[in-house]
Amino acid sequence: MAGTTAQPSSRPRSWWGWGYADAHPDDAECAAMGALLPGTLPRPLPVPRVRDLRIGGPAAEPPASLAHLVTADPAVRAAHAMGKAYRDVVRALRGRPGRIPDLVAHPAGEQDVVDLLDWAGSRRIAVVPYGGGSSVTGGVEYRGDAHDAVLSLDLTRMDRVLEVDAHGRAARIQAGTPGPALEQQLRPHGLTLRHFPQSFEFSTLGGWIATRAGGHYATGRTHIDDSVQSLRVVTPAGVSASWRLPASGAGPSPDRLFIGSEGTLGVITEAWVRLVERPRHKASASLAFTGFRAALDAVRAIAQSDLRPANCRLLDAGEAALSGVRADGSAVLVLGFESADAPVDGLLDRAVALARSHGGRPGAGGGGRAGDAAVAAWRSAFLRMPYLRDGLARMGAVAETFETAATWDAVPALIDAVRSEVGAAAAKVTGYPATVNCRLTHVYPDGAAPYFTVLAAGRPGDEAALWDDLKAVADEVLHRHRATITHHHAVGRDHRPGYDLQRPEPFALALRAVKSALDPRGILNPGVLVD
Amino acid sequence: MAGTTAQPSSRPRSWWGWGYADAHPDDAECAAMGALLPGTLPRPLPVPRVRDLRIGGPAAEPPASLAHLVTADPAVRAAHAMGKAYRDVVRALRGRPGRIPDLVAHPAGEQDVVDLLDWAGSRRIAVVPYGGGSSVTGGVEYRGDAHDAVLSLDLTRMDRVLEVDAHGRAARIQAGTPGPALEQQLRPHGLTLRHFPQSFEFSTLGGWIATRAGGHYATGRTHIDDSVQSLRVVTPAGVSASWRLPASGAGPSPDRLFIGSEGTLGVITEAWVRLVERPRHKASASLAFTGFRAALDAVRAIAQSDLRPANCRLLDAGEAALSGVRADGSAVLVLGFESADAPVDGLLDRAVALARSHGGRPGAGGGGRAGDAAVAAWRSAFLRMPYLRDGLARMGAVAETFETAATWDAVPALIDAVRSEVGAAAAKVTGYPATVNCRLTHVYPDGAAPYFTVLAAGRPGDEAALWDDLKAVADEVLHRHRATITHHHAVGRDHRPGYDLQRPEPFALALRAVKSALDPRGILNPGVLVD
Repeated sequence: MAGTTAQPSSRPRSWWGWGYADAHPDDAECAAMGALLPGTLPRPLPVPRVRDLRIGGPAAEPPASLAHLVTADPAVRAAHAMGKAYRDVVRALRGRPGRIPDLVAHPAGEQDVVDLLDWAGSRRIAVVPYGGGSSVTGGVEYRGDAHDAVLSLDLTRMDRVLEVDAHGRAARIQAGTPGPALEQQLRPHGLTLRHFPQSFEFSTLGGWIATRAGGHYATGRTHIDDSVQSLRVVTPAGVSASWRLPASGAGPSPDRLFIGSEGTLGVITEAWVRLVERPRHKASASLAFTGFRAALDAVRAIAQSDLRPANCRLLDAGEAALSGVRADGSAVLVLGFESADAPVDGLLDRAVALARSHGGRPGAGGGGRAGDAAVAAWRSAFLRMPYLRDGLARMGAVAETFETAATWDAVPALIDAVRSEVGAAAAKVTGYPATVNCRLTHVYPDGAAPYFTVLAAGRPGDEAALWDDLKAVADEVLHRHRATITHHHAVGRDHRPGYDLQRPEPFALALRAVKSALDPRGILNPGVLVD
Repeated sequence: MAGTTAQPSSRPRSWWGWGYADAHPDDAECAAMGALLPGTLPRPLPVPRVRDLRIGGPAAEPPASLAHLVTADPAVRAAHAMGKAYRDVVRALRGRPGRIPDLVAHPAGEQDVVDLLDWAGSRRIAVVPYGGGSSVTGGVEYRGDAHDAVLSLDLTRMDRVLEVDAHGRAARIQAGTPGPALEQQLRPHGLTLRHFPQSFEFSTLGGWIATRAGGHYATGRTHIDDSVQSLRVVTPAGVSASWRLPASGAGPSPDRLFIGSEGTLGVITEAWVRLVERPRHKASASLAFTGFRAALDAVRAIAQSDLRPANCRLLDAGEAALSGVRADGSAVLVLGFESADAPVDGLLDRAVALARSHGGRPGAGGGGRAGDAAVAAWRSAFLRMPYLRDGLARMGAVAETFETAATWDAVPALIDAVRSEVGAAAAKVTGYPATVNCRLTHVYPDGAAPYFTVLAAGRPGDEAALWDDLKAVADEVLHRHRATITHHHAVGRDHRPGYDLQRPEPFALALRAVKSALDPRGILNPGVLVD
């Protein structure tokens, strides 16, 4: 992916929706999509404009020593007001975005971050760390009014690979480096971080680490957690710098406390991360299954083998149809193997044989193995999906996703319950039939990560509240099945109620204690994870 | 290993040294070993007897409701006074063991643990959680006098596999279950935890988790950390129970805070752990190398491939000779592969080819592949080693090990520096030549875990202080090379100075805050990790 993509800076980003402004579906495309869903608007809501927002002057001014790092430009502030969840998009479409930050800072290095936190701490200014801004869980906005002002701390000027240890397969990288720039700088070394979340083009290393992001690969290092070798984190109580170590047993892992802390305990400024050689051998295939349960069994068998596929993505019939992979009611399993060392055809053969033994029919998308059309169709739909969601939102539709993970014993009933209960709730509140599709994005020997897509006519004018209602139903189902509130999208503000129910109470106590110790004035990303 | 070993309870354990009392070398064997090391004693120190210790009455008495769980028997108390480091053995041999706990409790379940902690908290009684007692870092003794009494909390009555989820490859297991009993209960299900530390016969699941123990396998799940699916932990502030999840991105991992907390934040009572199928296919081989640097390069190449050997253990020439593998000055690499699914000969061939390309000569120990004598010799020496250490200690010799991990760029100079500086220090303080051997026990794409053995004549009567002097030299070398104070033996009390230098200061702040929140009276394993 890297290197083939233009640098984000060279192409205007959408302030209100996903990705690049010029990649959004136009009005005609939106209308065509809307026509497929009964109950949507007759024509798309207009693309919202920053100049229509009432953005007042900032409630704080930086000291002269920091003025060069800080802007109060309304367009920049509006673009930093929210992440990119459906709920953010519809709030922007309705001209009611979240609280616009007073200021946006672009630190150039760690000392700038230290200075900005010092100043914010002295002035009761909330600091919201901001990487690529691709949060889909309300992770980068401010809610409430307990602070005198809000500063969005945008790390993207810190976008360099500072050091590469090719001998030891690791690199020291600044936290604000977006995916494409990161891979581009590693490419000359023949190395890759191999972390490709759906947000890859727009999200940053620091954001991945702060949110325990999940990459594209189905097994192995699914989360960024395992790629972190060491961290530098600026906390209001000092800079935390862990040692570069391949492994350690010295007390609870310091890095694991900051990984997933979502900007509440400190600002990650750089990390040494583990790299791998760029793969030279690849093979992929797809299989169709008549029944979803049989496909689940096949996936479990593969996940419990020693095959470790790079991809093992199971689409249910609805998801396969929606992404243009296959529309005959079959579930589709997309398998892929990669290696820098040796051909992987033998591994693919074994995985395909396992899937066939559970009723899988090879060549789900037609075509031969390496160029299986199902694989290509899926990849293209995958990258286009967030843009289409925004188009559907403009048609007044509900189009959102959420993801989870559970042990294998819980997975089938969980998926059934989400489909039926969230589907029924959506039909009830919108008055139209709703679609709830499922795919498995990551698989483990002991469980899997189901990812759900909800598509329904909306309740025009009331989109955010409608989603909140559906989400409450979804959260209840997840909780009842002991499925995590998030496998790789982070908690943010939107998942907070589910998170509070999930985490052990003594751990909540511990986290509050850590928060008080490291951020005694409570300026860092208030409302996320702890109060 | 499991199932072929007698249950620990059926055979008397040594109160002062490693393992079973009847497995220790006798006086003649000790003398023969001592004769190989100039400067040792003419005859072994006598085996120490509990009745020669002055053990007073306990400083506290349990309430009637807990009396059935608690003993003040002097032999039991003496056996719980210390772990099994060289420093512990020599203190026992000299009749000066660590502080004898006043009482030893054997809770039968979680509620007993809750009740015992409640009582201890109300009476300023220090609680030292105790599993198999195999700590080699001073993790299970009490030092200081800030408490009114000391209670050793022995979890080994909680030794059952409570539930097996064969479908999802996991089991719920009580924390006090020792390795052999754990594997014996899993065997009928065809499953194994596959965690075989050198202490396997005598250590427990809870101890492994509390100390981030490392198993026998060189790659993959080297540490118990990755096998933990969920935990139950009794803290003075309440019981922490995390959900069974294959993976999650919901905030910092609650389990990772307790994994490695060494009994300072709570008492682990049970865990769901991830299992694997018992391997059906195995292959192993060994290779000799003329130079250690070439062998390091071979190991790095294998660790950075996608081969993932079960064993990849590199012995330097001294270690190869000491363990009876090969005595011609060659370094020896022992390679092993395992799978439950498919033959592994192809993987072994590729690994051997990689090693040969770096100068490795196959068949280091003579003999054919599967039955390579070097592999067998190593395994047998590995399990016998702690007993021989105790025999050497009886001869007044210094015989101890320590281990670490570092990135590949640091490994060669680190090993050279430990060999020369610790060797020189040992020679200087004892007046005799010293041996410092090295092996790599675990390997990673980004580094390795060197394990050192120090053998020298002692300074009779002053063994513990002598070791403390050598350890200070070792710690300084590790710190200078940014090598962790422990890769898999935990911090305990002995590694505390090195740990304090290693951990980031904001993390120390965070850990102290967590300690205050979860253990406000400071009764849990005082002095370990935090003050």
